[in-house]
Amino acid sequence: MNSFLDKLKSKWEENKFVCIGLDKADFEFNKNIIDTTADLSLAYKPQSAFYEADGAAGLEALKKTIQYIREKDPNIPIILDAKRGDIGSTNEAYVKAIFDDLGVDAVTVHPYLGKEAVEPFLQRAEKGIIVLVRTSNPGAGEFQDLEVYPERSRRGKPLYQVVAEHVAKEWNQNNNCAVVVGATYPDEIKKVREIIGDMPILVPGIGAQGGDLEATIKNGLNSQKQGLIISSSRGIIFAPNPREATQTLHSQIQEILANV
Amino acid sequence: MNSFLDKLKSKWEENKFVCIGLDKADFEFNKNIIDTTADLSLAYKPQSAFYEADGAAGLEALKKTIQYIREKDPNIPIILDAKRGDIGSTNEAYVKAIFDDLGVDAVTVHPYLGKEAVEPFLQRAEKGIIVLVRTSNPGAGEFQDLEVYPERSRRGKPLYQVVAEHVAKEWNQNNNCAVVVGATYPDEIKKVREIIGDMPILVPGIGAQGGDLEATIKNGLNSQKQGLIISSSRGIIFAPNPREATQTLHSQIQEILANV
Repeated sequence: MNSFLDKLKSKWEENKFVCIGLDKADFEFNKNIIDTTADLSLAYKPQSAFYEADGAAGLEALKKTIQYIREKDPNIPIILDAKRGDIGSTNEAYVKAIFDDLGVDAVTVHPYLGKEAVEPFLQRAEKGIIVLVRTSNPGAGEFQDLEVYPERSRRGKPLYQVVAEHVAKEWNQNNNCAVVVGATYPDEIKKVREIIGDMPILVPGIGAQGGDLEATIKNGLNSQKQGLIISSSRGIIFAPNPREATQTLHSQIQEILANV
Repeated sequence: MNSFLDKLKSKWEENKFVCIGLDKADFEFNKNIIDTTADLSLAYKPQSAFYEADGAAGLEALKKTIQYIREKDPNIPIILDAKRGDIGSTNEAYVKAIFDDLGVDAVTVHPYLGKEAVEPFLQRAEKGIIVLVRTSNPGAGEFQDLEVYPERSRRGKPLYQVVAEHVAKEWNQNNNCAVVVGATYPDEIKKVREIIGDMPILVPGIGAQGGDLEATIKNGLNSQKQGLIISSSRGIIFAPNPREATQTLHSQIQEILANV
C-alpha cells in the first residue's frame, strides 16, 4: 500500500492541490461532492467534530464516506481532522480508532504533550501525522506567538516556530510528519517553510476564513514546487455548485503556479 | 441545575477527592464500578479515546454509562476526558456532542489555539472547562517547560505557567475553568496553585503512572483545603476489588488531609 506521502506526491504530480473539507455528517451529501470533485482533488478532509455531533448516525456517515472515497479512488489521501492529543497509552486507542478502524491515511494532532506522547501515531510510518503549528483562527497567537527561548539559546523565537523545528528535526524520523499553518497567516507559512524543508503543509483557512491564496502558494511551495495541501471546506461544499467552486479554486492555483 | 463547580464543592464538603477514570468501553463493567464506588467518589471521568476505539458500540457504552451515573447520583460530576481543541466554529460542534448530547458536566481541552477558539466551551457557564496545563506524561516538558517571555516582561517562565495565568486571569470569566496538572509533577502543582487561586486542579497520574499522592495534596489544596480532583483509572478499575482500591485511596487521602 502507498503511504500518505506517496499518495500526496502522485497527486501533486498531476498538479492537484485542493483538499476538500467534508464538514457535514451526511453520506448522500458527501457522495455528491465526491462524485463531482474526485478528479480535481488532492485530498479529502472530514472534520471529526461535525460527525461526532451527530452521534452514532454521524459515525456511520463518516465510515460510509471514507469507504466511498476509497472505492472512487484508492489513491486519494483521506485526512481525519480530529486534532487529537493525549498521553501515549491513550493515544494508542486513538490510533486504533482512526488508523485501524476508520482507516484514514492521516490525522491532525496537537503538539502540547510532546513527541513522547505522540509516539503511537509517529510509529505508523505509512500514515500522516499532521501537527498543529500555526492555526488559522484569529486568536491563534495567544500562545503560538509567545517568545520562547530554547535551551542554550540567547535568541527568542515564537513558539510556533519552535514546534515546527521539533517536528521537522525530531518527530519526523519515519518521514511521516506534516504541519498545519493557516492560510490566514502567509508570513508564518514562509517562516515555517524555511524551517521544515520539503515536508507537507496543510493549509486551512482558504474560502470562508478569508485566507490569502496567492501568498499561501508563493510562501508555501517546497523545493519541488509541491508540498501544499490547500484546504477549503464551507467555500466548496456549501457552494451552489461544489464542482464549479472546486474548479475555480483549482484554476486559480494553476494560474498562480504558472507565475512562480 | 447545579453547575460543575457546585457539584464538586458539595462532594468536597463530604471529604471526597477521588475521581475514577472509566477507561473501558463496557457498560456492565462500568456499572459494577459505579455501583460499588459511587458513595466514595468525587467524580467519574470516562476517557473518550477508549470508547471511540470501539466505534458505535463504544459510543453506546459511553451513553449508557453516563446515564447510569446520573440515575445513581445526579450530583456526581462527570468529566469527559476528550482533550478537544479546534477553531471556534468547529468547537461549537464539539460543545453540542459533549455538553448537549452526551450531557456531561465538564470536558478537558487543549490550550494551543487560545481563548478565542475555546469560547464556545467557555460560554457554557454551568459546565467545567478543564484546560491542559502540565500533563502527566514523561515527555510533557518538551514544550510545556520552554522558557517564555510574555509581552513586556524581562523575566522568563515556563510555558505551562503562562497557560495557567491566562486561564486564571482571562479565560475564567464565567468561573467555570479548571486546569490539568499531573500528579507526576508535584512541584509544578505547587506553582500552578500559586497562580490560579482556588480554581480546581484535575490531577491524573495517581496509580499506574506513579504520581506522588502526599506531595500532590500538600502542594495542591486551595485555601479551602479543597480544589483537587485526584484521578486514578487503571489503579482502580482493573484492581481485583475496585471498591477496596477506591477505599484505600480515599483513606490515604483522609490521612494526609488530617496532617495538613
